[in-house]
Amino acid sequence: MNIASIGLGLIGGSFALSLKKYFPEIKRFGMDNNPEHLQKALELNIIDEALHDENLFKMDVVIVSIPVDKASAVVQDILDKVHPKALVMDMGSTKGALCAAIAAHPKRSQFLAAHPIAGTEFSGPEAAFSLLFDKKTMIFCDVEATQPELVDIALSLVAPMEMTIKYMGAKDHDKHLAYVSHLSHISSFMLGKTVLQVEQNDKTIFDLAGSGFASTVRLAKSNPVTWTAIFKENKGEVVQALDEYIQNLKTFKAELETQNYTEIHQQLVNANELKPILNGILKKENHGN
Amino acid sequence: MNIASIGLGLIGGSFALSLKKYFPEIKRFGMDNNPEHLQKALELNIIDEALHDENLFKMDVVIVSIPVDKASAVVQDILDKVHPKALVMDMGSTKGALCAAIAAHPKRSQFLAAHPIAGTEFSGPEAAFSLLFDKKTMIFCDVEATQPELVDIALSLVAPMEMTIKYMGAKDHDKHLAYVSHLSHISSFMLGKTVLQVEQNDKTIFDLAGSGFASTVRLAKSNPVTWTAIFKENKGEVVQALDEYIQNLKTFKAELETQNYTEIHQQLVNANELKPILNGILKKENHGN
Repeated sequence: MNIASIGLGLIGGSFALSLKKYFPEIKRFGMDNNPEHLQKALELNIIDEALHDENLFKMDVVIVSIPVDKASAVVQDILDKVHPKALVMDMGSTKGALCAAIAAHPKRSQFLAAHPIAGTEFSGPEAAFSLLFDKKTMIFCDVEATQPELVDIALSLVAPMEMTIKYMGAKDHDKHLAYVSHLSHISSFMLGKTVLQVEQNDKTIFDLAGSGFASTVRLAKSNPVTWTAIFKENKGEVVQALDEYIQNLKTFKAELETQNYTEIHQQLVNANELKPILNGILKKENHGN
Repeated sequence: MNIASIGLGLIGGSFALSLKKYFPEIKRFGMDNNPEHLQKALELNIIDEALHDENLFKMDVVIVSIPVDKASAVVQDILDKVHPKALVMDMGSTKGALCAAIAAHPKRSQFLAAHPIAGTEFSGPEAAFSLLFDKKTMIFCDVEATQPELVDIALSLVAPMEMTIKYMGAKDHDKHLAYVSHLSHISSFMLGKTVLQVEQNDKTIFDLAGSGFASTVRLAKSNPVTWTAIFKENKGEVVQALDEYIQNLKTFKAELETQNYTEIHQQLVNANELKPILNGILKKENHGN
């Protein structure tokens, strides 16, 4: 079996490493816009060979893991060129615009919109590791638009990673992810910005900040290209989530200004409801790593 | 030496455990508003004996670790009653209002305003552990108002914990902490609230959220009583920090709405500047744990 990875960063690289571990017989091809990433992926044995337009037709599976604002054009181009029995799978964090863009493509049924809920704040092929996806959640979107035998191929590839598979509409996916992922990243980036504006002296932040600050601002280390693309592709849902978050912060500020501490206390108690869910996520994460 | 701990939660309990480890000869007394916490602290060998008003005068050191909105009254009361050579040390997260409240107390020079930058999202005596303070930062505020020989006692007690000691004015302390700690907690609590409002189905959050969400919302598990008190005591600085944070979020939203992706990308690049600082904090934390 020949599998090509378009995009050899954290996601594409880790998936290729994982495939190699579980399916040593697979021949792995790869392509990346960044020639240094391609070189590094070859050196790190993330792929076996560089992918060229000439051998694209020989691929059984093509996996696209690139900034989401480039995915629609790239997926369409690949669908144009692949073998009529090949599976093309996208691994990006947003799905609505992509699924809409390729809805009328004659080879739409060869495409599977996938999103593994896995990642770190690092990026590039050197951040890739073979365990990234183990025991995590994999979302397949609009799966009824994909040929069932190609969905089966995707399922068989991720089966040894013991991922939990969830099926969802692409629009629904983007709405949920705006809240449980994209908003967290904005909150973290802007928290980082706010602190850097005031604390001109890095040493002060370093000395005074504890693990709580490090935890809330961890995502501010994330890749700017990846995340600008996600905010762009999911603009509508992200603006909506951001609106609600800002409204909650303004309400909190008003309660503080009017010294309504009973209400503030109640809000903190309500937020504590996340405890069992968060403990579950951390357990799941540790399990996977 | 007799040392009393007023408040036997995460901070007071951990400090007492740490003292026992490094100074086994110290006799540890304790008091807590919550009779269950006192009982638990005795069971867990966090203290040796319950503290009563009658033996307060025999204490060499009294350490106050209670919700910060109660600290001014309690510290004044303890200063009234302690031996004229005793040290009274407060470990709360805010200092301005407390130092102002006791400025004119005849025994002001027996008081040291301290703040260890250490904690977890857990609370109560069962969350206490002896390593919490090791290699962390300890801030001493307005130290010129304390008798030098009493500062020396405090320094000798924390010396085996290898803490980094920082000296700071109480007002300055509250301003910095509003940014590097209090704001992180509000951002986390409100992020939790926003997601809970939309995701009525806990299972959806659990399935779709990854480690990024868990990291940014971790502080939403923090104790509501402790944190309502901190926001109350540091209201002015917290409102200011919150204002700037909300303004940054609104600017980000406006940039998204007007599709100014160049500027969004630049902001994410700027926030990435925190990387080395965050990596340093995590290294420091791991070292300490």
